Amino acid sequence: MNSFVYDIPTKVYFGENQLGNLGKELKKFGSKVLLTYGGGSIKKIGLYDKVVKEIKEAGLELFELSGIEPNPRIDSVREGIAICKKEKIDVLLAVGGGSTIDATKFMAAGAFVEHDPWDFFVNDAPITQALPIVSILTLSATGSEMDTGGVISNPETQDKLGRQGRPMLPAVSFLDPTTTYTVSPYQTACGSSDIMSHILEVYFNLNQDLYMLDCFMEGLMKTVIKYAPIAMKNPTNYEARANLMWASSWAINGFIRGGKQQAWSCHPIEHEISAIYDITHGLGLAILTPRWMEYCLNEKTVSKYVQFGINVFGINSTLPPMEIAKESIERLNDFFFNQLELKSTFTELNIDDSNFELMAKKACDEGVIEGFIPLNESDIKKIYEMCL
Amino acid sequence: MNSFVYDIPTKVYFGENQLGNLGKELKKFGSKVLLTYGGGSIKKIGLYDKVVKEIKEAGLELFELSGIEPNPRIDSVREGIAICKKEKIDVLLAVGGGSTIDATKFMAAGAFVEHDPWDFFVNDAPITQALPIVSILTLSATGSEMDTGGVISNPETQDKLGRQGRPMLPAVSFLDPTTTYTVSPYQTACGSSDIMSHILEVYFNLNQDLYMLDCFMEGLMKTVIKYAPIAMKNPTNYEARANLMWASSWAINGFIRGGKQQAWSCHPIEHEISAIYDITHGLGLAILTPRWMEYCLNEKTVSKYVQFGINVFGINSTLPPMEIAKESIERLNDFFFNQLELKSTFTELNIDDSNFELMAKKACDEGVIEGFIPLNESDIKKIYEMCL
Repeated sequence: MNSFVYDIPTKVYFGENQLGNLGKELKKFGSKVLLTYGGGSIKKIGLYDKVVKEIKEAGLELFELSGIEPNPRIDSVREGIAICKKEKIDVLLAVGGGSTIDATKFMAAGAFVEHDPWDFFVNDAPITQALPIVSILTLSATGSEMDTGGVISNPETQDKLGRQGRPMLPAVSFLDPTTTYTVSPYQTACGSSDIMSHILEVYFNLNQDLYMLDCFMEGLMKTVIKYAPIAMKNPTNYEARANLMWASSWAINGFIRGGKQQAWSCHPIEHEISAIYDITHGLGLAILTPRWMEYCLNEKTVSKYVQFGINVFGINSTLPPMEIAKESIERLNDFFFNQLELKSTFTELNIDDSNFELMAKKACDEGVIEGFIPLNESDIKKIYEMCL
Repeated sequence: MNSFVYDIPTKVYFGENQLGNLGKELKKFGSKVLLTYGGGSIKKIGLYDKVVKEIKEAGLELFELSGIEPNPRIDSVREGIAICKKEKIDVLLAVGGGSTIDATKFMAAGAFVEHDPWDFFVNDAPITQALPIVSILTLSATGSEMDTGGVISNPETQDKLGRQGRPMLPAVSFLDPTTTYTVSPYQTACGSSDIMSHILEVYFNLNQDLYMLDCFMEGLMKTVIKYAPIAMKNPTNYEARANLMWASSWAINGFIRGGKQQAWSCHPIEHEISAIYDITHGLGLAILTPRWMEYCLNEKTVSKYVQFGINVFGINSTLPPMEIAKESIERLNDFFFNQLELKSTFTELNIDDSNFELMAKKACDEGVIEGFIPLNESDIKKIYEMCL
């Protein structure tokens, strides 16, 4: 069991009618606010007007950057950095889903450096400072509202790369489940798949660590499995939206990891797909994850599948281990493709094998992904092929 | 479902060999450190020497206050405050269990006021500031290392009272499971009983709240039930000590509460016992808790017992609800009195009914405890009687 440092000081206002606290929280950081958002859905649901009202009433100066893409691009980051520098922004307010918050994180970090922000991804440029970030979440998925990382796409190079940086942890996040009422069943499904994957990437681990955290991960997975279908069928079910929202934060804020050391597997493998084909990240993960589990199953790894099958899906514990393991993968398939109604193959998304070699190479650019089991280029290509 | 604010910025160094970070963490707050501890057990285990070495190597000035009692007394708090004021202490370093950390919290708050610190407990004197607190935990029990509250005894008035205060949240806590290796089986049992009670006080609640948090509480309880007996039998089992230690923090840091509003029941009822008889808090809780559950069980409340019995103890879910409920109480009895080997009645502790009326009156000094079910003076007296 490894030692670790737990340090997640993000303050969260959870629930309805918390926006009255926005002004006072922003003010702690200064007077010039850069509001960042995506395609305008926050205007449709009336959130934009409420946010602007709070900012104005607090006497703060408002700047805006809209149009941040799903799978946000490095150009948006560059644009945000230019505004931060020119206007001497004090605090960034990201309103949206993970894409908006991710992009905003690198604007906050980029405001302190002279080099191009893509250097954070390809040249390991250090992230030692960032402007303070406040977020208002409108999609339960990436957990960016309470973690230190983000993923940015570069269409020129067909790269989609992640980077962590402690200074980019949001200082304050507002999580109002009602802001996710208008999220479509499809996007709810993709977000839930993303949350599930964040947990599975940590849970499927052969290193002994805190049992307590395994229990918590199982609880998080049961929560997603229970409430994602409810939220899809009944988009204004507060209970379902609230559970998914708080689960999204805790799936990835670092708490469940404890002292576990392990690279993630499905995320980097998926990023190569959405970098080229621009599909929704959660959809790619849903297709990949059960195949990855199937690929990794063997006599050495089976015990983790057994634990998963019994504790998350309630599979009969008296069955032979390998049977429980296979049944657990079946149940996960059922969740992704029947309950969440997601497409189950690359073929249905018009993705063929023409880029698999390149994608597999890029997914393990250091030769091997040291995850649940080590995966090299050839392993990853096989997993892609299983998804056809 | 209620809204809530999540805000727990305590930084935790978890695991062995983390003490090398102590100096740099203390230095952030200044140069004058008041080290507080109890009866000297930290000297026996060699922790005192290590701590002093780190402080000296960091070039900090060291002051000391030892002798803080289990069930810490207001006089110790007064003594600490006097040192803080006289020496212009910058940061307090509490090394010990919940008693030491609790007492230290009120020294930190008391350093900023002119009135007697007992006013924090009886006259609702505001806690608006406190000196920064760093803790090194040596007993898994109260969760004081990551929460905002504490409990102090006043032998003159036979009062034992709790108080919360946001500024008293420890800034940094060191949780090294090996520092609990020398905790006796009995104290391990009492600490584990305290942790269980912290969870049960929140879990037994009829207000609908986040399912995800119920799952987490069930995981915490399964953790304590699994590892407390192991730690008693094999005191140097790292895994057992580590799970109990991290569970102790998360049982009470506020996370599991979410938006639930409810007074605690067993804690105030127990405090009246240990205020007069000076028994270990966790022992009192173990005796009281199953009786309290028995007293509160009825057709309206049974569903919570059913959830508890099935999810924590794996009781057969096809049994009639009332049967599951009663079995769940039996299983908890078994845990406290067979597994943890704690005494199960007041009679065995030489506590008779002579003070029950007074204790019941003081336990609900506002007329009623608005907990899982409302309890008035007469209810509490009956629960005490069930413990004979």
